[in-house]
Amino acid sequence: MPKANKSLKTAGKAALSKAKPALRAIKGGKAAPPAKPAVKAPAPKPAAAKTGLKSALKPIPLKPAPAVADDVPVIALNLAPGKLSPAMTAYFKKCQERLGFVPNVLLAYAFDNAKLETFVAMYNDLMLGDSGLTKLEREMIAVAVSSQNRCYYCLTAHGAAVRQYSGNPLLGEHIVMNYRVARLNKRQRAMLDFAVKLTASPWSVEEGDRERLRRAGFSDRDIWDVSAIAGFFNMSNRVASATDMRPNAVYHEQAR
Amino acid sequence: MPKANKSLKTAGKAALSKAKPALRAIKGGKAAPPAKPAVKAPAPKPAAAKTGLKSALKPIPLKPAPAVADDVPVIALNLAPGKLSPAMTAYFKKCQERLGFVPNVLLAYAFDNAKLETFVAMYNDLMLGDSGLTKLEREMIAVAVSSQNRCYYCLTAHGAAVRQYSGNPLLGEHIVMNYRVARLNKRQRAMLDFAVKLTASPWSVEEGDRERLRRAGFSDRDIWDVSAIAGFFNMSNRVASATDMRPNAVYHEQAR
Amino acid sequence: MPKANKSLKTAGKAALSKAKPALRAIKGGKAAPPAKPAVKAPAPKPAAAKTGLKSALKPIPLKPAPAVADDVPVIALNLAPGKLSPAMTAYFKKCQERLGFVPNVLLAYAFDNAKLETFVAMYNDLMLGDSGLTKLEREMIAVAVSSQNRCYYCLTAHGAAVRQYSGNPLLGEHIVMNYRVARLNKRQRAMLDFAVKLTASPWSVEEGDRERLRRAGFSDRDIWDVSAIAGFFNMSNRVASATDMRPNAVYHEQAR
Amino acid sequence: MPKANKSLKTAGKAALSKAKPALRAIKGGKAAPPAKPAVKAPAPKPAAAKTGLKSALKPIPLKPAPAVADDVPVIALNLAPGKLSPAMTAYFKKCQERLGFVPNVLLAYAFDNAKLETFVAMYNDLMLGDSGLTKLEREMIAVAVSSQNRCYYCLTAHGAAVRQYSGNPLLGEHIVMNYRVARLNKRQRAMLDFAVKLTASPWSVEEGDRERLRRAGFSDRDIWDVSAIAGFFNMSNRVASATDMRPNAVYHEQAR
Amino acid sequence: MPKANKSLKTAGKAALSKAKPALRAIKGGKAAPPAKPAVKAPAPKPAAAKTGLKSALKPIPLKPAPAVADDVPVIALNLAPGKLSPAMTAYFKKCQERLGFVPNVLLAYAFDNAKLETFVAMYNDLMLGDSGLTKLEREMIAVAVSSQNRCYYCLTAHGAAVRQYSGNPLLGEHIVMNYRVARLNKRQRAMLDFAVKLTASPWSVEEGDRERLRRAGFSDRDIWDVSAIAGFFNMSNRVASATDMRPNAVYHEQAR
Amino acid sequence: MPKANKSLKTAGKAALSKAKPALRAIKGGKAAPPAKPAVKAPAPKPAAAKTGLKSALKPIPLKPAPAVADDVPVIALNLAPGKLSPAMTAYFKKCQERLGFVPNVLLAYAFDNAKLETFVAMYNDLMLGDSGLTKLEREMIAVAVSSQNRCYYCLTAHGAAVRQYSGNPLLGEHIVMNYRVARLNKRQRAMLDFAVKLTASPWSVEEGDRERLRRAGFSDRDIWDVSAIAGFFNMSNRVASATDMRPNAVYHEQAR
Repeated sequence: MPKANKSLKTAGKAALSKAKPALRAIKGGKAAPPAKPAVKAPAPKPAAAKTGLKSALKPIPLKPAPAVADDVPVIALNLAPGKLSPAMTAYFKKCQERLGFVPNVLLAYAFDNAKLETFVAMYNDLMLGDSGLTKLEREMIAVAVSSQNRCYYCLTAHGAAVRQYSGNPLLGEHIVMNYRVARLNKRQRAMLDFAVKLTASPWSVEEGDRERLRRAGFSDRDIWDVSAIAGFFNMSNRVASATDMRPNAVYHEQAR
Repeated sequence: MPKANKSLKTAGKAALSKAKPALRAIKGGKAAPPAKPAVKAPAPKPAAAKTGLKSALKPIPLKPAPAVADDVPVIALNLAPGKLSPAMTAYFKKCQERLGFVPNVLLAYAFDNAKLETFVAMYNDLMLGDSGLTKLEREMIAVAVSSQNRCYYCLTAHGAAVRQYSGNPLLGEHIVMNYRVARLNKRQRAMLDFAVKLTASPWSVEEGDRERLRRAGFSDRDIWDVSAIAGFFNMSNRVASATDMRPNAVYHEQAR
Repeated sequence: MPKANKSLKTAGKAALSKAKPALRAIKGGKAAPPAKPAVKAPAPKPAAAKTGLKSALKPIPLKPAPAVADDVPVIALNLAPGKLSPAMTAYFKKCQERLGFVPNVLLAYAFDNAKLETFVAMYNDLMLGDSGLTKLEREMIAVAVSSQNRCYYCLTAHGAAVRQYSGNPLLGEHIVMNYRVARLNKRQRAMLDFAVKLTASPWSVEEGDRERLRRAGFSDRDIWDVSAIAGFFNMSNRVASATDMRPNAVYHEQAR
Repeated sequence: MPKANKSLKTAGKAALSKAKPALRAIKGGKAAPPAKPAVKAPAPKPAAAKTGLKSALKPIPLKPAPAVADDVPVIALNLAPGKLSPAMTAYFKKCQERLGFVPNVLLAYAFDNAKLETFVAMYNDLMLGDSGLTKLEREMIAVAVSSQNRCYYCLTAHGAAVRQYSGNPLLGEHIVMNYRVARLNKRQRAMLDFAVKLTASPWSVEEGDRERLRRAGFSDRDIWDVSAIAGFFNMSNRVASATDMRPNAVYHEQAR
Repeated sequence: MPKANKSLKTAGKAALSKAKPALRAIKGGKAAPPAKPAVKAPAPKPAAAKTGLKSALKPIPLKPAPAVADDVPVIALNLAPGKLSPAMTAYFKKCQERLGFVPNVLLAYAFDNAKLETFVAMYNDLMLGDSGLTKLEREMIAVAVSSQNRCYYCLTAHGAAVRQYSGNPLLGEHIVMNYRVARLNKRQRAMLDFAVKLTASPWSVEEGDRERLRRAGFSDRDIWDVSAIAGFFNMSNRVASATDMRPNAVYHEQAR
Repeated sequence: MPKANKSLKTAGKAALSKAKPALRAIKGGKAAPPAKPAVKAPAPKPAAAKTGLKSALKPIPLKPAPAVADDVPVIALNLAPGKLSPAMTAYFKKCQERLGFVPNVLLAYAFDNAKLETFVAMYNDLMLGDSGLTKLEREMIAVAVSSQNRCYYCLTAHGAAVRQYSGNPLLGEHIVMNYRVARLNKRQRAMLDFAVKLTASPWSVEEGDRERLRRAGFSDRDIWDVSAIAGFFNMSNRVASATDMRPNAVYHEQAR
């Protein structure tokens, strides 16, 4: 798999200039498939200047903070890489070009092209498709649900997305730790209250809960979207926890 | 929507002779789209002979048990029906022909063809695609997870599937109520223990849990499938609870 | 114990014509004691015609659904049968005549006549005696409490009773799975909310909870009855779970 | 109701010399019925000498501890007293003679003689009848269960019983507060672990739990008794909490 | 350590006449350090007269209640006694003089003088320093929190303090068992509701909770104190549970 | 308060070169008191170069990430600043010099010098005093406990400390999100398992739990320290949540 590795390295460089929120674009493109799904994308080599700058900002470190390295392997299951379809190959290539890396969740699913495709299709429809919810709101739901479920992968990847979309690093931290401390408007608070209740005790969600969303300005279609996204991360959180899925290291530094 | 209604009625009759477990087949076919997703499939009219037999078996009823009627509407959100793609139209037609009805979850998603397609694709891959798990085992996971989440829709539809696939009505009841009372072999018990733990406290699933599955004979690929199916129903349970989704009435009588 | 077995068989036939909700009548009667409490009542042999009818209604079964057979033994404790008093002997005979079977919970208690008598006396007073609650309402409480406690025996036996008393198979399913999905009037909902809260967190029940029942039309005597019935099933659920008590198979088919 | 009051006062004196653990004896006796069930038994007037002694033992009180007075009324429901049967009348008289008071739980049930009788019969069978469990062990179960359910009435009445039967005031406190701190032998610990698990999560009790009791020396009949007693207090705790039942004040001082 | 033992015995006698609520006064004083922290203070020998009086009041004991003896050792960790500072030595002496004993929590911390001092300083500031809360209110918080955490040590020591400060033995019992059964005024109830919520789910405390305290008459400074005391006992409960800390036996009899 | 503000600004610059883990040193020093405790320390102005570097590393931000600004005010209670003692004044000054800021928790306590002193004394003894636990291990406990309690303040401040002490940014994230995903050695895992169990269900900690720590190499004194630190953060988490305490913004960027 030298070709794949090479493309990954090349992509690493690209990440420095034109990355976008993970998984943001999906249509089209052509690329080599990630040859070995169980292997992480290489950590971007931080420039020496950066390390120097950070150490100036923080208290005297007891030991130099190493460049953040990816956890390996991506998941704790031993699954041989599958043969990717041209569409998925192109999608991975596009991820490399735009994000600088292929999100590990995609590498995890890549042992089976059919599963990868259904995951990507649902993900992109929910998180990037038409909706009355902004992309930031959708990511906020992702993080609030993942916090309830204490999902390391999703908190890391989508915490970064909240920081990016909002331009507010604190908002990402707030929702990772306890969404109740975030400075939310009434709409956002109602949305996250619903998503978290649906996560913690789905059996107890009733008409009164839907009514609260309506009173906060959500249409019935919006309520579907809040529910479907909250549901989706209740799925993803469990797949990630069940397989000990590890996020790409690059997320940790994004938009801090 | 006369055409759709007609096809629904026709299909109702077909159900008496050649129905299959819900959602079992997805590939191909052509049919009229379900014209009004918020409306239920008509309840099959139970033959008089059957009612007579059942009343002979049971204690004197205080009032005659009515033919089971579908709850209406399918969900508590007011969503206009979407335009279905030819593939989805065919899929609905095939449901009618083989099951005698279109499962309400499909009608619920049918307000948006893209969402319907991603749901159907993922569902069919997980529940009907290749796997080291039998279809019965997958349905057992579905029901055990749905019991933990007390999801009316999924317990009803997949409880029926467990009864059908196993040919054992009691097994379906057991897993609906408390999977620990079911007479399971070690493999099945390990599988459901994992799925239920993953549902109740996903953050606590660790290598030891995976090891228990391996010792019970599951491959790493099987562990993925157990996890992905458990994850999927943690999603579906929440979409169903959030929208007050109602199962087709016909499930209640299946395979009792 | 040939005599007892004979009476059981005879009673089995009687069940086809004049059974009543389980445990409905207690006063008087004379019958042979169930000689071996740890042994189940024989499963009613379903007529061939019925099996044919059901298979026509349901999708093609993977294997023929067997006649529902009783789980054996009734409980997981090895307890020798006790000597029944004339009153209990008569009571068991009456069960056979009217229900077609002796409910397994009675067989379970029959290892000790004194315990059987106190159980029967309390059960019948609460479930069949004078009360401002209808018999259906009392059974609804039984099922809602048993669902909270995930009690297989009580969900099965009393789920059947709700189906019978209400003439509404769906209502039974609703309360077994999640009472919040049932279409309840305000009185019923208040009643079940109280019973379930009392089950889940008895320490938190206070005057405000009683006031809610009063506002829903319950008298103080009614509140006692709701409480006592909810309490009773919190007891029975635990005796059943502790002993792995198995319901008579016949319940599964009743009033579907 | 002067007669009743008189008998209550007389009984109060008797309590000083020949009281026994509450509800210990049930057979026979003749007495006036407690005329007004909602009214408490008068608090025993502590002798002056005793107050003096206690104040010498304890730190300077900020205000003199009043003689412990009964909470009134016995329950928070307004229920008119019922007509007691001769057997129950005699039973109440015997309570007065032997305990010096009628336990409030009996006064609470006395609005309906049938309910009182079934409660007394079951209580006495379980707590005072033949069993492989000592009376102390049964009371320990009562308190451990009631602690899990935070039931004021039962913790008070049965906490006193544990103190009395064991002659060890600390043991009563331990089980009221957290049975895990009590110095228990293996048999007792296994017994309470089972009872508390059965209380907290009855659905999770399985054969392994019964096996643990057997290994600790319990017969299957003993396991029934542990289960039935734990079940009974799960009932009583809920009746008490639902009705805000108040224990007789005298329990607080017993066997300290 | 004969000297220390002697001073402990001497102090035991003093306890009969001038003890005060445990840990009430801290400033000044001179005393021998408790020589062996892991050893309990001797149980006060109850006068024969007292035992006689109590046995007259209670039902016939099955065995004579022994004088309450201290659990030994104080904690389940084997920690050598530390060298106490003059201030702490004086403090222990003052405890002996005023309370008649050194509270075991102090003996537990006495393995390290620095830890003892910080504990004593914080305890005394919170429980005895200036505050808008009365000392009784602070002890009520201590007990309500400790009940939530089922902490044997703190329930015993601070349950006694509530009995003493209130002069109401029942109030102490109520809060030990379930603060909701206590007859509280609105201020007290709001205070304990806040403290218990903060204990059970600190992440869910928000502005609305603080507002409820303000509406019940608490200043912002009072809210700090409620929070800090509730926080403190969440710490102490855990130190006590983690080390199996045992309260002085004398607490059990105080202010009954 | 110009003097205080000036010293804060001056200190801000110092932070760039010689800051140390928050609260690391306490002894000695002299400084102006923080004049207005409810006001945050100014956020360090990130050098332009750094911002440029970070934006090169991350995907195209939708809006420029603002310099992280402190939440204001520090707590949600309106408490006037207290008069600080010379020792506390010096301590604050030392914080400014070494950390570049005064941790907000100190500003929060500064409304009352006595409370501030007891908090600082206990904190420094536990976190910086002699112990068999390394400072990193102590911070790991702080974060694991705070994660269980979802405490925003403590997760932020002590998450930064774990990143700093370990030189491993990922370790900090892991424990904030779910300590079970961290790559811990057996000693660390046993330590955090104990601390988290003690946090979640203190009543269930028993000798077996202490034995597990001993088997992992902890002395009894170490067990005390684990317990005391876990206890301390159970206190601090609740004070922070009860008062909506906000961490200094600078923590968010430390040691990433």
